[in-house]
Amino acid sequence: MQVKKAEAVPAEPVSGSPGASIRWLWAEKDGAPNFALRLIEVQPGASTPHHAHPYEHEVFVLSGRANLMEGSGEAHPLGPGDTAIVMPDETHQFVNAGGDVLRFLCLIPLARGAKP
Amino acid sequence: MQVKKAEAVPAEPVSGSPGASIRWLWAEKDGAPNFALRLIEVQPGASTPHHAHPYEHEVFVLSGRANLMEGSGEAHPLGPGDTAIVMPDETHQFVNAGGDVLRFLCLIPLARGAKP
Repeated sequence: MQVKKAEAVPAEPVSGSPGASIRWLWAEKDGAPNFALRLIEVQPGASTPHHAHPYEHEVFVLSGRANLMEGSGEAHPLGPGDTAIVMPDETHQFVNAGGDVLRFLCLIPLARGAKP
Repeated sequence: MQVKKAEAVPAEPVSGSPGASIRWLWAEKDGAPNFALRLIEVQPGASTPHHAHPYEHEVFVLSGRANLMEGSGEAHPLGPGDTAIVMPDETHQFVNAGGDVLRFLCLIPLARGAKP
């Protein structure tokens, strides 16, 4: 087993999304067998990419406020302790809807979109 | 996509571990394709089972204090913002090491030990 502090993992920029960063807590680099655990941080006024991909997300909000946007424009407000699943191929975007940093865990399966 | 409050998901007892409960936030019942997100809560003085199984855990501590025990008896202290990976077949146990409820997210792959 391995343990670490999430904040000890470097925050990398999210391509095309200024103000958003990602920490790959557990991924293939760590020997994770099946899925990757990432911590995403979004500054006030910023958002993650508006996109879709052929794999799911499972999400848990740690702090801050988000609007989880559907492709239709519908917004799902999320706060600490709220959780979401985004199914494969669903268009989605996380928009920081508050004045504080939005922090959420976001999981993906490996071998389909994961960082090597 | 689906969204919900983690606390709206029923907390079920953990068999053989009085004082421990589990909320299956996303699992096969919700159409999760690859892995299950569970929220585990352990009361002061309680712990999860001391066991091993042929699939991994990825863990993120939300609140409280834990000792993550290895089969050897070695203890890894964990607190909020700490994260762990327990590899397949590694003996492990989460012991509440503080005076407050220990709350952590614990992920497992589906089709190997997941709730139907």
